[in-house]
Amino acid sequence: MRIVALAGGIGGARFLRGLKEAVAPGDEITVIGNTGDDIHLYGLKVCPDLDTVMYTLGGGINEDQGWGRTDETWSIKAEMKEYGVGPEWFGLGDRDFATHLVRSQMLSAGYSLSQVTEALCVRWRPGVRLIPMSDDRVETHVRITDEAGPRVVHFQEYWVRLHAAVDAEAIIPVGADTAKPAPGVLEAIAAADVILLPPSNPVVSIGTILAVPGIRQAVSDASAPVVGLSPIIGGAPVRGMADKVLAAVGVETSAEAVARHYGSELLDGWLVDDSDAEAVAGVEAAGIRCRAVPLLMSDVPATAGMARAALALAAEVRA
Amino acid sequence: MRIVALAGGIGGARFLRGLKEAVAPGDEITVIGNTGDDIHLYGLKVCPDLDTVMYTLGGGINEDQGWGRTDETWSIKAEMKEYGVGPEWFGLGDRDFATHLVRSQMLSAGYSLSQVTEALCVRWRPGVRLIPMSDDRVETHVRITDEAGPRVVHFQEYWVRLHAAVDAEAIIPVGADTAKPAPGVLEAIAAADVILLPPSNPVVSIGTILAVPGIRQAVSDASAPVVGLSPIIGGAPVRGMADKVLAAVGVETSAEAVARHYGSELLDGWLVDDSDAEAVAGVEAAGIRCRAVPLLMSDVPATAGMARAALALAAEVRA
Repeated sequence: MRIVALAGGIGGARFLRGLKEAVAPGDEITVIGNTGDDIHLYGLKVCPDLDTVMYTLGGGINEDQGWGRTDETWSIKAEMKEYGVGPEWFGLGDRDFATHLVRSQMLSAGYSLSQVTEALCVRWRPGVRLIPMSDDRVETHVRITDEAGPRVVHFQEYWVRLHAAVDAEAIIPVGADTAKPAPGVLEAIAAADVILLPPSNPVVSIGTILAVPGIRQAVSDASAPVVGLSPIIGGAPVRGMADKVLAAVGVETSAEAVARHYGSELLDGWLVDDSDAEAVAGVEAAGIRCRAVPLLMSDVPATAGMARAALALAAEVRA
Repeated sequence: MRIVALAGGIGGARFLRGLKEAVAPGDEITVIGNTGDDIHLYGLKVCPDLDTVMYTLGGGINEDQGWGRTDETWSIKAEMKEYGVGPEWFGLGDRDFATHLVRSQMLSAGYSLSQVTEALCVRWRPGVRLIPMSDDRVETHVRITDEAGPRVVHFQEYWVRLHAAVDAEAIIPVGADTAKPAPGVLEAIAAADVILLPPSNPVVSIGTILAVPGIRQAVSDASAPVVGLSPIIGGAPVRGMADKVLAAVGVETSAEAVARHYGSELLDGWLVDDSDAEAVAGVEAAGIRCRAVPLLMSDVPATAGMARAALALAAEVRA
């Protein structure tokens, strides 16, 4: 079976680890990774979501924080502070820096981001085929108004530095309008037997992937059933600050509202948490088959159970 | 008093530390640093000699090895090995990487190497004005013949990887012929009261600085006395493998031969070690005033003594 998943960072990566446990031997998983949270720091190209997927599936992730490397050291960060070179608010450890150095050097040498990602995965062996959504530069920016007045900041500044403490007025995936899907993205979607939307951020992760021209259409047109898992449980994001960016696009923070936001042109099936069972009827009324199951990724077996439920719902849709 | 010193890496930096102890309050030291051993690694511009001077005078050097940072960590090097990205033979610690990242980012932003060096020195406060010999790219290469046949390698590959174990057939400062002295270099030389040649490598350190068009002439033309200190004691380099590169330019490894190699057009005075006292007559016969003094930089006070002897010889020449 060929499974395609669209994934952001921490939530997507953890779901994929469960998915790998849930699939049968011989099944192939292709992950289309969000690159909208990419940022250039210290002259290097940093791809937080791609790396979180790669490190998580490759056994190099810092489990406690969910991002960055295990056994990390922080010498460069300390030195940058001594040099007075920022940003101080973004945490790049020394081991992590090595990845960005290798990536940046390969990009400078003319390789595409998807070629670089493939090369990095030779080391990490994530057990999935990881493709960035696009080889073109796309960076999500957020319009806010704070004491500095109305302004637009990089998504990472909004998320990491400001902790999404001010309202997001608009989410702008800069460059997405002219970006092309990376080689293999549309082909993988067209050839898929199942397409999964993990419980990643519906706006700045999966929404950004779908904003690359051609990808949303390819998912809609795909013969494979498209099944998503709600990142919202009991009216709140399980992790992160998805409510802030949902509000920016006029979507209520609820399992049903997110399903309706994706819409029945895109989604065939939707999983909500048991605690949101009352949402099932509303989602089905929107033309999307819906089931309530436990959706907390508390450990790998629980997450594998979620993945099995998603695959089962896909099979049910297909039948 | 305005003192100008031409300096390479470890030997030059250690001499400068002694020189700082030897000068009077108010004296100004300008260091013209060799950049011929610069190398691009992992997409970054690495300037080993400039950094060794900066770290040594700024209190950040690893005293035992003479290069690199104190309290260093090696996470990136370990990661590069995992990625299979070389060169493995060049030791760049994590703290050191931070310097190269800041430098490379500033160079990409359009600053010159001398501007970048000045900016880095804002942190390090080396107590001297450190100027690279040139803002233009100059990289020393070495022609060798080994089992791979005749070939040309980067100086760092010859020095660090091959430990100068094969003969150097030629020393080629690539780019030197079209390089221009960095802003301030010729002015500092012209305005100097004393010009010192520390016991740095006469070929690949000081020789490379002198190979930048205009610098040798400026030193020759300077009204200030030019005094050098022999890096050769008892027929052998005190440190490093200077004999290998001296042979490549047809110079015997002796205190007298190095003085004659610089020549009386350049040198007014030359210090040899006490153990080479028999060389004094030969050097003076070549038209260069010469004294034998202890030349082992065993500690800072001993090195300060060498610097005082050099300044005294300069005063004697001037009188």
